[in-house]
Amino acid sequence: MDRKIVLPEKEIPTHWYNVLADLPFPLDPPIHPGTGQPIGPQDLAPLFPMALIEQEVSTQREIPIPAEVREAYTLYRPSPMYRALGLEQALRTPAHIYYKYEGGSPPGSHKPNTAIAQAYYNKQAGTRRITTETGAGQWGSALAFACSRFGIACKVYMVRVSYEQKPYRKSLMQVWGAQVVPSPSPDTHAGRAVLEKEPDNPGSLGLAISEAVEDAATHDDTKYSLGSVLNHVLLHQTVVGQEAQKQMAIAGEYPDVVIGCIGGGSNFAGIVMPFIRDKINGKQVRAVAVEPTAAPSVTKGRYTYDFGDLAETTPLLKMHTLGHTFIPPKIHAGGLRYHGMAPLISALVEHKFIEGVAYPQRTCFDAAVLFARTEGILPAPESAHAIKHAIVEAERAKEEGRQRVILFNLSGHGYFDLAAYDEHFAGRLEDYAYPESQILEAMARIPKLAGVS
Amino acid sequence: MDRKIVLPEKEIPTHWYNVLADLPFPLDPPIHPGTGQPIGPQDLAPLFPMALIEQEVSTQREIPIPAEVREAYTLYRPSPMYRALGLEQALRTPAHIYYKYEGGSPPGSHKPNTAIAQAYYNKQAGTRRITTETGAGQWGSALAFACSRFGIACKVYMVRVSYEQKPYRKSLMQVWGAQVVPSPSPDTHAGRAVLEKEPDNPGSLGLAISEAVEDAATHDDTKYSLGSVLNHVLLHQTVVGQEAQKQMAIAGEYPDVVIGCIGGGSNFAGIVMPFIRDKINGKQVRAVAVEPTAAPSVTKGRYTYDFGDLAETTPLLKMHTLGHTFIPPKIHAGGLRYHGMAPLISALVEHKFIEGVAYPQRTCFDAAVLFARTEGILPAPESAHAIKHAIVEAERAKEEGRQRVILFNLSGHGYFDLAAYDEHFAGRLEDYAYPESQILEAMARIPKLAGVS
Repeated sequence: MDRKIVLPEKEIPTHWYNVLADLPFPLDPPIHPGTGQPIGPQDLAPLFPMALIEQEVSTQREIPIPAEVREAYTLYRPSPMYRALGLEQALRTPAHIYYKYEGGSPPGSHKPNTAIAQAYYNKQAGTRRITTETGAGQWGSALAFACSRFGIACKVYMVRVSYEQKPYRKSLMQVWGAQVVPSPSPDTHAGRAVLEKEPDNPGSLGLAISEAVEDAATHDDTKYSLGSVLNHVLLHQTVVGQEAQKQMAIAGEYPDVVIGCIGGGSNFAGIVMPFIRDKINGKQVRAVAVEPTAAPSVTKGRYTYDFGDLAETTPLLKMHTLGHTFIPPKIHAGGLRYHGMAPLISALVEHKFIEGVAYPQRTCFDAAVLFARTEGILPAPESAHAIKHAIVEAERAKEEGRQRVILFNLSGHGYFDLAAYDEHFAGRLEDYAYPESQILEAMARIPKLAGVS
Repeated sequence: MDRKIVLPEKEIPTHWYNVLADLPFPLDPPIHPGTGQPIGPQDLAPLFPMALIEQEVSTQREIPIPAEVREAYTLYRPSPMYRALGLEQALRTPAHIYYKYEGGSPPGSHKPNTAIAQAYYNKQAGTRRITTETGAGQWGSALAFACSRFGIACKVYMVRVSYEQKPYRKSLMQVWGAQVVPSPSPDTHAGRAVLEKEPDNPGSLGLAISEAVEDAATHDDTKYSLGSVLNHVLLHQTVVGQEAQKQMAIAGEYPDVVIGCIGGGSNFAGIVMPFIRDKINGKQVRAVAVEPTAAPSVTKGRYTYDFGDLAETTPLLKMHTLGHTFIPPKIHAGGLRYHGMAPLISALVEHKFIEGVAYPQRTCFDAAVLFARTEGILPAPESAHAIKHAIVEAERAKEEGRQRVILFNLSGHGYFDLAAYDEHFAGRLEDYAYPESQILEAMARIPKLAGVS
């Protein structure tokens, strides 16, 4: 039996799978906060090229992947799938554990799956420059990488505290030719307004979004790019799950449960949507979304319309939210520190196609260390949440004395997160339980709109 | 045409290729510095298990890879080969450039190819603990990874200045369960002697070797492990070249030139030895070893017997050396900062099977940045030397207006070297030319032995 299941280049998917074609329920549309009406393509046109706006609302089941995008995917796709033989042995479980590894891409995560597609459609539309925000830098580095492929200038507004404390993701973006500035920056009205009051403001993701959006909206040749949450972003990630289905078939198995960590939802959506399609068609398969207890949108949030960002610049999205003013505690899984959830994931949770579960960070780091010692690969703290739940499923299988096939998405490596591992070993990490009072306060500030809920 | 050539797991080589079986000349043996006589197995027995000592002198052409070692190799082998389509396009060269990528292993380089084998044979011999030294941490992390596979305790003496300035490789070793101490340490006589005189001594690789060797020699359950230079280490790396030959065959090509960077020589030996075998058998293929001008052992050194370490604890090896007391300037390619060269590589250079070439570091960083922007992968500064020369060969092909097939070993990724890229972009890197006076001084201190040269 092979530990590693690799696919030849020709098995890179030829299309993205669009679950909107198969949903057995309607998906509530984004709402314009001013009018209370569903937003139209024109509302988004200043920020995104029309091809991506069309993908955002398309109900076509299979959307062809352009040749140039597939060509760029060959830099790291198909990604390998591993049977976790070392982990299984350590757990003495009868379960078979498989993981899809997205950390082998040059930026080190699944993020380039959509960054490449977004850069490509922008290039086609004549965009010469793309702006985005980044926290710890996972998304920013993926977009920098993608823009370097297509000869597009890239400007990344990086939350200042990360810019200063985690300089190496910034350096990586610069190697790929991107301009990286700490946010708040003097380059936008939003940034200047903050800097005038408080020159040492550490920045926040919400503010960085405001800066990136303002920059794109005020420059003709510039568009904006987002790394998660939106339908078209999740769509592009479905290459992960399509490959995983081929690889599971080669292994001669089908998963009982598919697992991924969720922040905005894109890596989980990537691996799970092709299986959700099977589930809609009657197949038995569980889908488990794993979030941190510090930002438990699916397990503790409200399913309602809310802003995607702190600064209230986005449309209102129907989703699980902790309130757009909620700032999650500073857990090391920076990619999971989001108040909301992709509307597609939220709706599937609401309709019982997806289960949610939450863990505090220390047990996730313990799982990551066990994984590194048994499987070799050093996981990102975000991915550690998926590992933690895979272990829980494997231990249940052992208790029940029966076989179970577990598949999870190992969305990225942890080479840039070793300071967090140091903190863990030194016993300095905090476990944040459900931060109830802050969340209740933030939930009270979710906008109430007439006629929508 | 595929950009990425992957092999299935069953194509992991079943044996290591031992070039000692095919050398058309005798290889001068290691000499005991006290007696001036060739050393025997007993001299090495306190440090290495007998199976490795036998491999060090074996002339068997194919040495079977134990099942347990192949099993551990499945964690990251076979490694991919890429056609450098993006780089070729940027250079507008008629050359076809291929690279074998070893940076996808969990420690991020080719080093685990031998670390796993060494840990395995030690486990078989009942070794419960292995010591080693490490500079920047590439080798130490590979050994920590390998020891975690086989349940062997691992202690790494890490040069203090690296321990303090580059903490993340240390953290990586700790994730894999290794004990890492800064050298000089209070744990050995050698370390204490230095600390008593100078408590803030920054350490050196030579001293760290002395500490690791002393630790192994004075503990019954402990052996010592080395990451390059020795025959058995180079032997284990030949999985790289064997896979590369299969992958070139799939591409339907055979290289005109095979390129690798050299510090101690192991990654270059790994890719080149199976091609040297072909060359010995009459095939036309050039082999180019690329070194930094800051430590130009092959291009500027003397071919003679010298110590492998500063502290004169090793046997005398016949090799290209700059003098064992030469401390190379602090270039960022830490893995290439070695005064000597593997005796096997040196002998092949002397007999014209291998060419040497040297470059200063800034042009190598320029090559690395071009590579990252065209091929995506961020190279280690060591590997950047191989890229630089591949580009030179590709440009020559363009000038000559003819095809040329170029293969190089991309031995590791640069995720832990981004501070060096920052320095490069800031224009703060120095180009060290041949440090002539220091080398002449060090060469004068090469031991002169009666009857050997």
